[in-house]
Amino acid sequence: MAEFKSKIRTIEWIDTYSKMVDQTKFPETFEYIDIKTGQEMFDAIQTMIVRGAPAIGIAGAHGVVLYAQELAKYNLSLEEFKKELIKKADYLVTSRPTAVNLYWAVEKQKEIIKKSNASVEELIDELKINGKKLEFEDIEINKKIGDYGAMVVPKGATILTHCNAGALATVGYGTALGVVRSAFANDSTIQVFADETRPRQQGARITTLELVMDGIPVTLITDGMCSYFMKKGMIDMVVVGADRIAGNGDSANKIGTYTVAISAKYHNIPFYVAAPLSTIDTSIKTGDEIIIEERSHDEVTTINGKRICAEGVNIINPGFDVTPHELITGIITEKGILKPDYKNSISNLFK
Amino acid sequence: MAEFKSKIRTIEWIDTYSKMVDQTKFPETFEYIDIKTGQEMFDAIQTMIVRGAPAIGIAGAHGVVLYAQELAKYNLSLEEFKKELIKKADYLVTSRPTAVNLYWAVEKQKEIIKKSNASVEELIDELKINGKKLEFEDIEINKKIGDYGAMVVPKGATILTHCNAGALATVGYGTALGVVRSAFANDSTIQVFADETRPRQQGARITTLELVMDGIPVTLITDGMCSYFMKKGMIDMVVVGADRIAGNGDSANKIGTYTVAISAKYHNIPFYVAAPLSTIDTSIKTGDEIIIEERSHDEVTTINGKRICAEGVNIINPGFDVTPHELITGIITEKGILKPDYKNSISNLFK
Repeated sequence: MAEFKSKIRTIEWIDTYSKMVDQTKFPETFEYIDIKTGQEMFDAIQTMIVRGAPAIGIAGAHGVVLYAQELAKYNLSLEEFKKELIKKADYLVTSRPTAVNLYWAVEKQKEIIKKSNASVEELIDELKINGKKLEFEDIEINKKIGDYGAMVVPKGATILTHCNAGALATVGYGTALGVVRSAFANDSTIQVFADETRPRQQGARITTLELVMDGIPVTLITDGMCSYFMKKGMIDMVVVGADRIAGNGDSANKIGTYTVAISAKYHNIPFYVAAPLSTIDTSIKTGDEIIIEERSHDEVTTINGKRICAEGVNIINPGFDVTPHELITGIITEKGILKPDYKNSISNLFK
Repeated sequence: MAEFKSKIRTIEWIDTYSKMVDQTKFPETFEYIDIKTGQEMFDAIQTMIVRGAPAIGIAGAHGVVLYAQELAKYNLSLEEFKKELIKKADYLVTSRPTAVNLYWAVEKQKEIIKKSNASVEELIDELKINGKKLEFEDIEINKKIGDYGAMVVPKGATILTHCNAGALATVGYGTALGVVRSAFANDSTIQVFADETRPRQQGARITTLELVMDGIPVTLITDGMCSYFMKKGMIDMVVVGADRIAGNGDSANKIGTYTVAISAKYHNIPFYVAAPLSTIDTSIKTGDEIIIEERSHDEVTTINGKRICAEGVNIINPGFDVTPHELITGIITEKGILKPDYKNSISNLFK
């Protein structure tokens, strides 16, 4: 199988700071920002300078290192240092409550902290090394997801995706767009339809940008158009990412995903979720238990700084929705493609 | 039954010109524009200063009068005048090819032209009178649609609508929002959820504005959110307008409507189309025959003058989609609510 070489590296630990692409500047500019303190990382996650579940996870791991570097200045005992650092790590997780990868990656750092009997300096080194390891693992995991997913992409397929589960949502390569990249490496007639993904337009701003950068043909559509193109036979499959997957396969992803899944079902089009195993939260049984983040009303009422609706209108802005397992054809992971019944296939995997 | 008093009059013939609300200025300003020539009317229709199928129809009727006033300056014989005016009328129809009401209203004026044996001046008067008549009829028709529709609105219902089939899409009162107004007049616990309706955001810009002006509670959502709220049990019914309805009930409406209809079906929520009989085109058997207008790519790539996606992306921008009859619970007209089988109920009505 041919390998796809992507131009995009979203987040990277550099010696004493975290270097990341500033995703709030898309699509005008593609520029990097250096995050040098824990609070800067908290803000970067909350304001979505970094976004996408796996990338947020790495940002969380880096954030713990940044807090550790700051706490090191106070000459605390190892025990005090560990206690304070765990507090900071727990605070960091509150920056995006729906993203299970953030929790997962911060927990990985907390395990290092709890186990460590070395000096503060050595502990910081261990956390850095662990952060780097998680970075590399993320890219490797995505390539595996991509390669497994590519096996179910028909020749010449048009793949619809929602939001951005791409290289820019991960350390690199992407989950849903990792499937696209792996498929495209072996079949250059593959193309993508990208939902713009209101309110924050990650599809328009981010997915189009990273696919154009990597030379993969992409057509931008508004969220309501998906059914029109499905009916016309122009969409062969849907692949989306996930922010959290319950033990029964119910998958939380960007608001609007559930609508696409219903439409795919109506048109008999395969609907896949592509996500690393770290996205699966077996502690929750069904999607009903997933807490949906309510986001700022300005995201709905304002675009590019200009109000788009009347004053006096009510707003509800759920950031995510849950696609029930019965609408999902398969969950593409780094260990292969999970198929229904997901309760069984997931629990077998985590045995 | 209580009667609803709306503050909104979208289009009105004033002596020698057509006065209309400029709908491109929403939601910042609510201002009127005077259209004084046929070409100005052509442009007003094409650039959507006036929009909404019934309002476009009246604009077409007014446009024929404006062309007649201009041609009157050339001292043509009645026969030459009639011939030239019919040419202008046919040209006017090309400004929005999907809107059957435009064709319908212009045809009504052409019938006057063809029949007339009077002087040019008298013919112009006849066209003005006919235009006024169509205006008043439109409001009366909408009130009847509203009153019939209100009968199927449950007490305290939340009604989801897409795009704007309101007072501002008609001469006044509205079709889908006419149903809302008639229901609200008798039950002030009725409320509306409005899809923003990308790409042109008529739901955000226009529906929220007219409902706030008329004191009806409205919640703005993005197009992808509808299924989320349906699943939560927060939507009791969907009512939308139509731009053209085929003989079998297939209904063309703003792009995105079809997606809402699929989602309503999936959640067992009634989905109604509210439209005057003039929207029904019995010359076409099914929705497959409806030509879908492809609109400017800028509508998708640019919002408020700012590009929202990468350069190099492909765009397809269908202005409408067709909701197949099997997804439609009923078609609310001024003669009552048509129910499936629509082929029968429509042909019975036009017998």
